[in-house]
Amino acid sequence: MWDRLWIGINAATMDIDRDAGPYGLIDDAAIGVRDGRIVWVGARADLSGRPGALARQVIDGDGALVTPGLIDAHTHIVFAGDRSGEFERRLNGERYADIAREGGGILATVRATRAADEAALLASALGRARRMIAAGTTTIEIKSGYGLTEAGEIKMLRVARAIETALPVRVRTSFLAAHALPPEYAGRPDAYVDHICEDMLPAVVAEGLVDAVDAFCEGIAFSPDQVSRVFEAARSAGRPVRLHADQMSDRNGGALAAAFGALSADHIEYLNEGGVAAMAAAGTVAMLLPGAFYFIGETMQPPVAQLRAAGVPIGLATDCNPGTSPMTSLTAVMNMGCTLFRLTPAEALSATTRVAAKALGMVGEVGCLRAGLHADLAFWAVSGPQELSYWIGGVMPSGRVFAGVPDDAV
Amino acid sequence: MWDRLWIGINAATMDIDRDAGPYGLIDDAAIGVRDGRIVWVGARADLSGRPGALARQVIDGDGALVTPGLIDAHTHIVFAGDRSGEFERRLNGERYADIAREGGGILATVRATRAADEAALLASALGRARRMIAAGTTTIEIKSGYGLTEAGEIKMLRVARAIETALPVRVRTSFLAAHALPPEYAGRPDAYVDHICEDMLPAVVAEGLVDAVDAFCEGIAFSPDQVSRVFEAARSAGRPVRLHADQMSDRNGGALAAAFGALSADHIEYLNEGGVAAMAAAGTVAMLLPGAFYFIGETMQPPVAQLRAAGVPIGLATDCNPGTSPMTSLTAVMNMGCTLFRLTPAEALSATTRVAAKALGMVGEVGCLRAGLHADLAFWAVSGPQELSYWIGGVMPSGRVFAGVPDDAV
Ligand SMILES: [Zn+2]
Ligand SMILES: [Zn+2]
Repeated sequence: MWDRLWIGINAATMDIDRDAGPYGLIDDAAIGVRDGRIVWVGARADLSGRPGALARQVIDGDGALVTPGLIDAHTHIVFAGDRSGEFERRLNGERYADIAREGGGILATVRATRAADEAALLASALGRARRMIAAGTTTIEIKSGYGLTEAGEIKMLRVARAIETALPVRVRTSFLAAHALPPEYAGRPDAYVDHICEDMLPAVVAEGLVDAVDAFCEGIAFSPDQVSRVFEAARSAGRPVRLHADQMSDRNGGALAAAFGALSADHIEYLNEGGVAAMAAAGTVAMLLPGAFYFIGETMQPPVAQLRAAGVPIGLATDCNPGTSPMTSLTAVMNMGCTLFRLTPAEALSATTRVAAKALGMVGEVGCLRAGLHADLAFWAVSGPQELSYWIGGVMPSGRVFAGVPDDAV
Repeated sequence: MWDRLWIGINAATMDIDRDAGPYGLIDDAAIGVRDGRIVWVGARADLSGRPGALARQVIDGDGALVTPGLIDAHTHIVFAGDRSGEFERRLNGERYADIAREGGGILATVRATRAADEAALLASALGRARRMIAAGTTTIEIKSGYGLTEAGEIKMLRVARAIETALPVRVRTSFLAAHALPPEYAGRPDAYVDHICEDMLPAVVAEGLVDAVDAFCEGIAFSPDQVSRVFEAARSAGRPVRLHADQMSDRNGGALAAAFGALSADHIEYLNEGGVAAMAAAGTVAMLLPGAFYFIGETMQPPVAQLRAAGVPIGLATDCNPGTSPMTSLTAVMNMGCTLFRLTPAEALSATTRVAAKALGMVGEVGCLRAGLHADLAFWAVSGPQELSYWIGGVMPSGRVFAGVPDDAV
């Protein structure tokens, strides 16, 4: 006996093994769940028995479209402080350099995050996670990178883990000590990288807080050589890597990420041809982040046509962070992916489900509607899956199911 | 005795007569309402008596920021059909000309809207209006322009009026028969303009359905001469005018609007210098619509610096419509106004409150927090008014009050 069975729905399974177009569409579908897992997906007509005989609870979806729960594979939602004042100062004509000299910019977030205790940090992060959940998200990747000390990074990652305990959402963590150079190491980036590799990384891994290791390769952050050292340490610790790559300049970041078999290279507006080819060969996801592109007024487009031609899987995420991408809705991101980067709506939904799962190393757990996977579902009152990418600012789901349990049943 | 009194709030009154900065901020404020109107706004310390002695109900706002209810002064939310499929076809590489030849584009919406009965049209528009209300909007302007026959335009405007009856929101209508050339008049635009001026406009005005008259001046729509004829007819009927002006090309639309004392000229990416000066002299609002700018990939920026220098009031609206701006959140628009057009957050909030009221001829009724005005309020859990413009995709209010009544008290 299944726990629940949904009928009266259409399903965009995003299961590409089905021969049903880019959305894996099933009209008049049924989905059965038991013990938090999907146990049956298909056309209702193919159900082998009366719905009431198959499941303890049968729910009519009233014509809703059901998709996999959305997966936000790149966020920085654990932080303290508020940068909307800085946003206003810049629009009032102040220069970023002046704001940074007065202690603004990312180091303002570092200062506030270091000063916040775990409870306060958790409370503010839960607010952002709740907004993501309300917008249809069921899995969130969360990065450290505003502590930049061993204790500070551990505090952030503990908060990330605590979100998973507090809310109906899956969390995957990324250790991002190589996000910015902390003030204590000004002028000594290599010494900070040594500290990351020799002290911080082993400590946070030992605490079980690290699902992946991330770094920011850019002129204002860390060099390819420094990133390589962090990635070597990750390899020694048995952790997969991801990279903030080629966002503001071509640093050969795509190739660097691919050389370490990275799960994803993120941003990649300035990714070069060699990087595209290397990522294709390595199976590295191209994680596009149109929120930051839009917010900072970037004009260089990521090489979508080349990624497509090379068969690089394209992902999308909010990059939710206080400095360059304050946003929480993945359907808003999907609209930006289509409007700003000319992705198709099918690519955009794939990017926040199937491909996002790949970027988190969660293929076979989440990301499509298939028996055996976690029963994380989003319900939408839309004309079809393309409408999920159509609304500027996104569209809110009519319902959400996490691990087989509807939010309104909690 | 007042009906309700809010304390424990900060207020961004947007009342520029107060000497309290661009937001008219009052910290630790109080707002009293009676019979649907604001009767008192000020610092709580200035209340002349105990709160409980002043009002039947005292509500603690728990530190929320209170702003005027937001005003969406340019929308096309009454329509039938769905254009997300067309959105997908274009992203899949089909050309607009081919889609239009097969019956897509605005004429698809005209066909669907003509075919829909009043009840169906109302049901779909109510869905969009509810999303606007949930996002903090308390007044919506709604245009006709998908009927393009006397009966079709009357049907649309009746639906617009019915929204005001069905939901806690104020509605102002604009008669926009000069939106597109209906197929019956192909090749005979002047004959259609005659029909508008001689038959349609008098009929809809006689039914009490017209608060303002609007037109679309563009190569793909109507010429300045044709618009002038519509505006002359509006003047004869005693109705103010507005204009879709200079969106895709410089048609001298700003000057044309100003010459008729238009309440607003809308879009105006290609507005010329003479238009700016004429609008300043006429007091015509510059209604910027960044949703359409973003959605169609426009690159020409409206002349914000010149508008500012000339003292032209700058408004913002969703332009909610199925073809070029599917969006319902005014805070999402405010973020786009700041990010894409470099408005300041104070200008953006003014644009959706005080200036939007001016564009609807509603100064003294709505648009700021001042005794005597309608008690339409929005409550926000934010660090300050600048945060309303900060979030990509907008921010949802924590509460809303329409005509003195909280939504959760209905
Ligand atoms: Zn990031
Ligand atoms: Zn319009």
